[in-house]
Amino acid sequence: MISVTILGAGNVATHLFKAFQKTEQVSVKQWYNRHLNPIKAFKTDVDIIDNFNQLKEADLYILAVSDDAIKSISQKLPFENRLVVHTSGSVSLYDIDKKNRRGVFYPLQTFSKEATIDFANVPLCIEAIKSEDYHTLKNLAISIGSPTKRVNSDQRRVLHLAAVFVNNFTNQLYRIGHEITESEGAEFDVLKPLILETAKKVQELSPYMAQTGPAKRHDKKTIKKHLKLLNNNPHHKAIYELLTESIQITHGRKKL
Amino acid sequence: MISVTILGAGNVATHLFKAFQKTEQVSVKQWYNRHLNPIKAFKTDVDIIDNFNQLKEADLYILAVSDDAIKSISQKLPFENRLVVHTSGSVSLYDIDKKNRRGVFYPLQTFSKEATIDFANVPLCIEAIKSEDYHTLKNLAISIGSPTKRVNSDQRRVLHLAAVFVNNFTNQLYRIGHEITESEGAEFDVLKPLILETAKKVQELSPYMAQTGPAKRHDKKTIKKHLKLLNNNPHHKAIYELLTESIQITHGRKKL
Repeated sequence: MISVTILGAGNVATHLFKAFQKTEQVSVKQWYNRHLNPIKAFKTDVDIIDNFNQLKEADLYILAVSDDAIKSISQKLPFENRLVVHTSGSVSLYDIDKKNRRGVFYPLQTFSKEATIDFANVPLCIEAIKSEDYHTLKNLAISIGSPTKRVNSDQRRVLHLAAVFVNNFTNQLYRIGHEITESEGAEFDVLKPLILETAKKVQELSPYMAQTGPAKRHDKKTIKKHLKLLNNNPHHKAIYELLTESIQITHGRKKL
Repeated sequence: MISVTILGAGNVATHLFKAFQKTEQVSVKQWYNRHLNPIKAFKTDVDIIDNFNQLKEADLYILAVSDDAIKSISQKLPFENRLVVHTSGSVSLYDIDKKNRRGVFYPLQTFSKEATIDFANVPLCIEAIKSEDYHTLKNLAISIGSPTKRVNSDQRRVLHLAAVFVNNFTNQLYRIGHEITESEGAEFDVLKPLILETAKKVQELSPYMAQTGPAKRHDKKTIKKHLKLLNNNPHHKAIYELLTESIQITHGRKKL
């Protein structure tokens, strides 16, 4: 049994709390937030607190707070030599105040408040200085059914950056697809099976092998037609040109 | 029972042939290609030909050939007033020679030679001039289990353009994710659940509602860190900047 105290009330904090509740291998000791209001719905399930001095001993403390708050909250913790981890992809482990044992427990997934999360689909990227702390974090991940990956700070930073490309930027390409189809009264819905298949394809095949389309084929005629259709939106056109160029750099016949 | 003759030997032709073989509602009369070699593996299943003069009567002829070949092949067909369709997203219906009845049967999906295709996940965008031809094409799609959508040429053109964004360009973002993670010895595999979840999310939610991340939050600190990591690759950096800007245009606080 691992005892955990959560600090923060955002999506990651809430989804972790719910996942910990479901397993008997984890006991959530306390849930801290600077305002009790966002977590008061859980007060019958867990000891909710808004004062650092009320913090009791736990095996680990998870700072599931905004990147900017990690450093200052870790400094305010009124204890020493306990395991304190954050959940951020881009903040250094060393931002956590060194009076405690430090670690990172970074879930590489997109969370929204409403959606239910199956942690079997949430890889947990783990970083710790001490081997015993690494094993505590690994066991915690396993107890909620998550695959785990030991990553150092540099690897975590590039994973977070790559996540922005494959998640936020990809989603923006979906958005542009939505705008383009609606502009002619076509339906975005027709694109949904293609969106899903594109994501499924790279589960087995490398993105390099999975690529198709006019950019890879250097099909100048189709590219020209597309650019003409985009004439009324210079920003979409710039994205089309830049990503076409990027594909052609990847697949040869065009040099940087 | 609909009788069909396929012309061409690419991915679309091959996958359509296999789908037609599986249903009793369709009979593939002949399969034409200018060289017999690519289709000779199917010669026990279907009459394979390489000469237009061998073409027999069928309910429809599907030109599943490259965009550039549609016009000239349609001109060479030695018959009139039959239903001739192409499968392209970007070629006009009027590229088909007017001596025949014309239509489009455009499967909006990504095809690779190896992968098996479930046509239930392949929306068929149908265009025809005559109502009876539209119904023939719709029945053909239904017989292989595909959802159908009647679209005009303008709508098909923007769907094809949008498909490039959500498929080819998205796949290139996966590729960049692959390059970025491998540069630090991190594993692309860790990103796969996120890629899948990003695609699943917009099956229910609009891409607008599904967006998260540093660009949308105007999290300048994280964006700055990411740009610094991309300093060694100006092309990836340009894509990061342009798509960040695009997200901020979509989600306000930044004007075009």
